[in-house]
Amino acid sequence: MLKECLENLEKISPRIHSITNYVTANDVANLLLACKAKPIMADAEQEVEEVTAVCSGLNLNLGTPNDQKVSAMLLAGKRANQLGLPVVFDPVGVGGSVYRKQAAAKLMQEISFTAIRGNISEIKTLAFGNSNSYGVDAAVADAVTKENLEQVIPFLKVLCSRWNTVLVASGEIDLVCDGKQCFVIYNGNSAMQYVTGTGCQLSALLTALMAANPYTPLQAAATAVCLMGYAGEVAWKHMKAGDGNITYRGRIIDAIFNMTGEMLEEGARFELR
Amino acid sequence: MLKECLENLEKISPRIHSITNYVTANDVANLLLACKAKPIMADAEQEVEEVTAVCSGLNLNLGTPNDQKVSAMLLAGKRANQLGLPVVFDPVGVGGSVYRKQAAAKLMQEISFTAIRGNISEIKTLAFGNSNSYGVDAAVADAVTKENLEQVIPFLKVLCSRWNTVLVASGEIDLVCDGKQCFVIYNGNSAMQYVTGTGCQLSALLTALMAANPYTPLQAAATAVCLMGYAGEVAWKHMKAGDGNITYRGRIIDAIFNMTGEMLEEGARFELR
Amino acid sequence: MLKECLENLEKISPRIHSITNYVTANDVANLLLACKAKPIMADAEQEVEEVTAVCSGLNLNLGTPNDQKVSAMLLAGKRANQLGLPVVFDPVGVGGSVYRKQAAAKLMQEISFTAIRGNISEIKTLAFGNSNSYGVDAAVADAVTKENLEQVIPFLKVLCSRWNTVLVASGEIDLVCDGKQCFVIYNGNSAMQYVTGTGCQLSALLTALMAANPYTPLQAAATAVCLMGYAGEVAWKHMKAGDGNITYRGRIIDAIFNMTGEMLEEGARFELR
Repeated sequence: MLKECLENLEKISPRIHSITNYVTANDVANLLLACKAKPIMADAEQEVEEVTAVCSGLNLNLGTPNDQKVSAMLLAGKRANQLGLPVVFDPVGVGGSVYRKQAAAKLMQEISFTAIRGNISEIKTLAFGNSNSYGVDAAVADAVTKENLEQVIPFLKVLCSRWNTVLVASGEIDLVCDGKQCFVIYNGNSAMQYVTGTGCQLSALLTALMAANPYTPLQAAATAVCLMGYAGEVAWKHMKAGDGNITYRGRIIDAIFNMTGEMLEEGARFELR
Repeated sequence: MLKECLENLEKISPRIHSITNYVTANDVANLLLACKAKPIMADAEQEVEEVTAVCSGLNLNLGTPNDQKVSAMLLAGKRANQLGLPVVFDPVGVGGSVYRKQAAAKLMQEISFTAIRGNISEIKTLAFGNSNSYGVDAAVADAVTKENLEQVIPFLKVLCSRWNTVLVASGEIDLVCDGKQCFVIYNGNSAMQYVTGTGCQLSALLTALMAANPYTPLQAAATAVCLMGYAGEVAWKHMKAGDGNITYRGRIIDAIFNMTGEMLEEGARFELR
Repeated sequence: MLKECLENLEKISPRIHSITNYVTANDVANLLLACKAKPIMADAEQEVEEVTAVCSGLNLNLGTPNDQKVSAMLLAGKRANQLGLPVVFDPVGVGGSVYRKQAAAKLMQEISFTAIRGNISEIKTLAFGNSNSYGVDAAVADAVTKENLEQVIPFLKVLCSRWNTVLVASGEIDLVCDGKQCFVIYNGNSAMQYVTGTGCQLSALLTALMAANPYTPLQAAATAVCLMGYAGEVAWKHMKAGDGNITYRGRIIDAIFNMTGEMLEEGARFELR
């Protein structure tokens, strides 16, 4: 499954439109190139519909929001919905302000998302309007652990059904759900928390994999999460004395650049619930 | 020629004003520092004329455009024209939307460009209003090859005369033309397509070299293209097992940082037609 | 002192709100993660007060300014003042335009800054409305040297008293002053001038250290400056043949990631005047 999804991505090389924040836009573009997709960034209301229409997927990221960007997201998202293209939403730091909450609510009301990816605090904020987190990181109190998996998975499945979307909850354990099934994914390395934008990058990767595998969205999403996490593991093995978070950032994207379907199948660690 | 142009750049260390996209702005700034120029970025209408006036060259890049940025480009470009400073235009993804086409047309109408750099699809779009490409990459159908060089070169020379500019068409074969002569440049490495912003970086390098060599714009432009391409070759030789596109990105800029005039003369591969 | 300040930062891991330019925002975020702080970026007027209120420090950076960003800085800065949070101001390229000078003047009038960090030309521009520099670099005529230290230090102390702030003047010799004392710091490597955003990064580091050490602002500031400079020295020792400014950029942040209080105490070179 993972092998096929990844190979479809390399074969199809979909063009992905990202409306994203300026903090991690460069990483997102290079990540998309690493996985053999083609990035394009555009966020002016005057052009986003047209740009989306020549792409195979749309990646909407709530970091550093402003009114123009949110309007552009609404226009591009609706156009992608009309065209049947996958649309991924990353509600970066949605718990941090009323402004982000309202923007997220409006986007969720007017756009049908193929997938929503966030940490568990961000997803709780989308569901309830608040969580235990005020920043871009998940709150410890919200963390998904082996102990609370049995509670969290049904909660996420209900949200998937309500929102008619695939949900990706990133954390030490990653969960990838639709209304029926949940991949519990154990790949990753805790040092990834010291690299800015790994979440933004994962959302872009998710969009690319969903664009290349339109009939198996859940599997495509699980592939993206395993790939990002396993790349974090491979990258960690390349670290030497004196290396730090910037070298690690580069090594993760390099690992995605060099990943084959076989390597991914072998390295992925997950179970289905 | 190349040696002299590059050494003038190191000697003069021109300050370059870039109005550019947020995806690759950091790479552009580091590239300019690598070639010993001084970067400054400013894109508010209120300050761009003043900033341009204390610089030796202006680099206008159409990535992630919006109305404010385009207005700022118009102001800065006109000021640079008044002061006789080189102005380079990079019509990033101009085929992707009517909005970019109109912005590019307005810029070309109101500003006299010293050089325009794009892939061949972008240049065709500037000339005809359309091409075979909808993204930031050139379309295969537009590609410059050994087989169609005899057709493409006269076409570009006509455009140079019409627009009174140097044209740089980037691709597997790079062409650097004015109305009379054309450098056909064979430097480069195909892996550069997996690094975001190599085009944006080349346009900045072009601006710096033209600022340092105001009386030989065609030679300055050819030097920039040979330098970027040869840096891509040198960088590729430094790649090790496990390295990917992010490491390659860094290695290219590092190679420019370490390039001497002698090395460049030796590594450049071009012919004049 | 340095050891304690740095260990407090690692222990407390403060969330830092940066309103900053798009050129170096990614580096700033990764730098904050390297020193174990938590970055958040937000610059819409609608949300900045709320975001500041859940952070422990605010970092205001004048690069690529526009009206919205300056308004957001005013709102966030006033809120931080109300809450007693440290606010750091980095007047990037303030000598480059009337627009930046007016924005800086307004920010200094309405916000009480815990620290202001710039090169000596930028600080002179804040004080007198002009300097010998028009770009983002200090002018040679303004440079702090061993020969003029006796003149520069009292000048800075007067400004500290007038503005009721800690002043950090970056250069070959770094000065960290309040109205009474001045740390003269000799750490650093001249190759840091070829890396974009080391100043922006230092201002973010300064904010993090001040947030973690609220009762010893001068010492916290000196720690930030020694740490950045010493990281530049450590990073330089890791450079190999073929490495250039991009590799150096990464190595500096990596060195901060790996720095311990003991290493810093041993490597710091300063005197108190």
